[in-house]
Amino acid sequence: MKAEKLARKAKAASDILAHASTDEKNRVLVRLAEKLGDNREYLYEENAKDIKAAGEQGLSKSLIDRLRIDDKIVREMQGSLMDVASLPDPVGEIVKTWKRPNDLLVGKMRIPIGVILIIYESRPNVTIEAFSLCLKSGNCVILKGGSEAYHSNKALYTLIVETLKGSNISPDAVQFVETADRDFIYSLLERAEEIDLVIPRGGEALIRSIVERSRIPVLKHYKGVCHIYVDDESDETMAIDVSINAKVEKPATCNALETLLVNEKVARSFLPKIHKELTRHGVVVKGCEKTAAILKGVKKATNADWCMEYLDLTLSIKVVKDMAEAIDHIRKYGSSHTEAIITTNYDRAWKFLREINSSLVLVNASTRLNDGFQLGLGAEMGISTTRLHAFGPMGLEELTVTKFIGFGNGQLRT
Amino acid sequence: MKAEKLARKAKAASDILAHASTDEKNRVLVRLAEKLGDNREYLYEENAKDIKAAGEQGLSKSLIDRLRIDDKIVREMQGSLMDVASLPDPVGEIVKTWKRPNDLLVGKMRIPIGVILIIYESRPNVTIEAFSLCLKSGNCVILKGGSEAYHSNKALYTLIVETLKGSNISPDAVQFVETADRDFIYSLLERAEEIDLVIPRGGEALIRSIVERSRIPVLKHYKGVCHIYVDDESDETMAIDVSINAKVEKPATCNALETLLVNEKVARSFLPKIHKELTRHGVVVKGCEKTAAILKGVKKATNADWCMEYLDLTLSIKVVKDMAEAIDHIRKYGSSHTEAIITTNYDRAWKFLREINSSLVLVNASTRLNDGFQLGLGAEMGISTTRLHAFGPMGLEELTVTKFIGFGNGQLRT
Repeated sequence: MKAEKLARKAKAASDILAHASTDEKNRVLVRLAEKLGDNREYLYEENAKDIKAAGEQGLSKSLIDRLRIDDKIVREMQGSLMDVASLPDPVGEIVKTWKRPNDLLVGKMRIPIGVILIIYESRPNVTIEAFSLCLKSGNCVILKGGSEAYHSNKALYTLIVETLKGSNISPDAVQFVETADRDFIYSLLERAEEIDLVIPRGGEALIRSIVERSRIPVLKHYKGVCHIYVDDESDETMAIDVSINAKVEKPATCNALETLLVNEKVARSFLPKIHKELTRHGVVVKGCEKTAAILKGVKKATNADWCMEYLDLTLSIKVVKDMAEAIDHIRKYGSSHTEAIITTNYDRAWKFLREINSSLVLVNASTRLNDGFQLGLGAEMGISTTRLHAFGPMGLEELTVTKFIGFGNGQLRT
Repeated sequence: MKAEKLARKAKAASDILAHASTDEKNRVLVRLAEKLGDNREYLYEENAKDIKAAGEQGLSKSLIDRLRIDDKIVREMQGSLMDVASLPDPVGEIVKTWKRPNDLLVGKMRIPIGVILIIYESRPNVTIEAFSLCLKSGNCVILKGGSEAYHSNKALYTLIVETLKGSNISPDAVQFVETADRDFIYSLLERAEEIDLVIPRGGEALIRSIVERSRIPVLKHYKGVCHIYVDDESDETMAIDVSINAKVEKPATCNALETLLVNEKVARSFLPKIHKELTRHGVVVKGCEKTAAILKGVKKATNADWCMEYLDLTLSIKVVKDMAEAIDHIRKYGSSHTEAIITTNYDRAWKFLREINSSLVLVNASTRLNDGFQLGLGAEMGISTTRLHAFGPMGLEELTVTKFIGFGNGQLRT
């Protein structure tokens, strides 16, 4: 199928899906959860083809692990489908209303965005997450997974289509890109008449190549260089606990801590304590000159370190004069992803919260909380650092837009 | 100045402007209003250069009228500056908050988008409107007006810069594109690192050329093919009044009525009555076969007519079997701009409101009401039919995005 035809099929289905009933959408999600369970052997067989190919291509163990579908992953996918089914349907919600002097009641009503192209790598469960969030929010979705997970994604897509065939929702509401041909994707990225939004998830190089080619708005984040600033007025134990959690709980994620900024008034007391904890957790520190003077033997951080998304057990530490210097550092080197301050000072907590314009700004909490589930959105489609439409984790609400509505009794423009 | 340098200056100013106080921003707006009054002779002199050049180039009288700055236009610009000063500052508003099971209080706070590039034609007062809305919402703005209004826009920009110089806000917060060189604009459209949003206003060809080139999200509408559907259960007088208002009050605007859809049950009674009123207002009708059978002598509408934004006193009329056919017609030929139903039927009012996903959907009111002032946004930056971020008129709120904020007391991810 040509890119144009595929995009047109999705577009044609989107006007109908936009008005599917909540019950109908939820039934599809619940039935799909059942179907995943009933067809797990089929999923494992197809998945084994990807695993085998990955092994033959010499992919790393961690990459192969991310590809794998097993009982645990099936249960997780089922759980996420049931979760999305239980979330409120955002479509049709009237967000607010106000009355005009001429008695026209004006409001804003949530509607789906339309057709969303998701481009993602490895983990095949993204296929299920993307489909379920798009379906529930009334959006048609075009799925383009990584070629390394082709058989797994195709199998999941097949089960989705079978489920839709037993419903009133057209299977055209979900489209699957079969080919690994880059030109096909590039053609899709030109179809602004049919596709409303592109969400790429994956490495920075992949995302940059998509942004470069796309005629369609792209919501994405390139990387997460997340900071914690430890104020001189702060609870030392909390500062250690939060920093350790942010760095080591899952270092390969975009919301993990990469740079710790420490107020110079507490550096001499605080740094040795946190360094001990970091070392105990296997974290290697790279420090600014002042840090290196206090923590003998740590490597010097270069300018490149301040921009680094290590994604592993490395942490850069910088001693700063005050919060103003911390804010300047974050503005200069940050990625607008997630930043936190540890403080007991009211003024500084608010100043930090207001002046740092990252997708999530926290007072006294771990950067790892920047996640749709953790923040209570129920589920998410990825985290956006694009300062348009959705900034931060994208849940169901972020997959909608509002139209204006007006209830009149003959109002004219005069 | 190179496009890169100009974009970087705006970007550098945006972190500061984002945290300018409301008082400071309002003071600038009020002082600028005074300055426009104090410098009206200067404005008229500069404007005369554009008017003269336009005359020499043989521009139409209506185009020359749109260019003109006179006492009335100065008063309007002053009024719009005072209006924007009196609107609430959206920046820093916490839109909502919710508490997580771990007691983390999560919220969404409005922040500016960042740097906005506005590309517009003719009317020089757009310079003032765009600047005032961007300043109040904390956004830096890059102004690119039409070359036909160069001297007028430059003069207004000069007064803006003088006003900013007397404030704490950097004049870099507003950038003015001096050159008419297309390549300069194309370079700006590539600067996604510094520019967050492009809003083009003008003809369809201009806008398409911008969308084609831009690496930055573009909010726009190409055209407004607006519909009114007259239901068989409706107040005939209201249907006539609203349709006439929508067609003739200002036919050259994007929210003017272009196609009237009439339920066949009332066509025989309704069409001659509205035709008489339309003729009285100088409107020429093009009709479908059924319309032509009822209204002898009217021109037949071709397929092209259903897609036409006439922008003049022409109206196409189609008789439809029922509301479902009206909705199909709107989906097929509409531009997602503004649609209205005239009905007394509760079910159909709601069905129309829900199923038509245009930027404004009205029950019993004129399509001409799709406007920031009319809908109560206070002012607007244009109307978007892009189904992302802002759909419909873009007021101050639509020039912001929300970041997530979290108030914790040591919350970790476990």
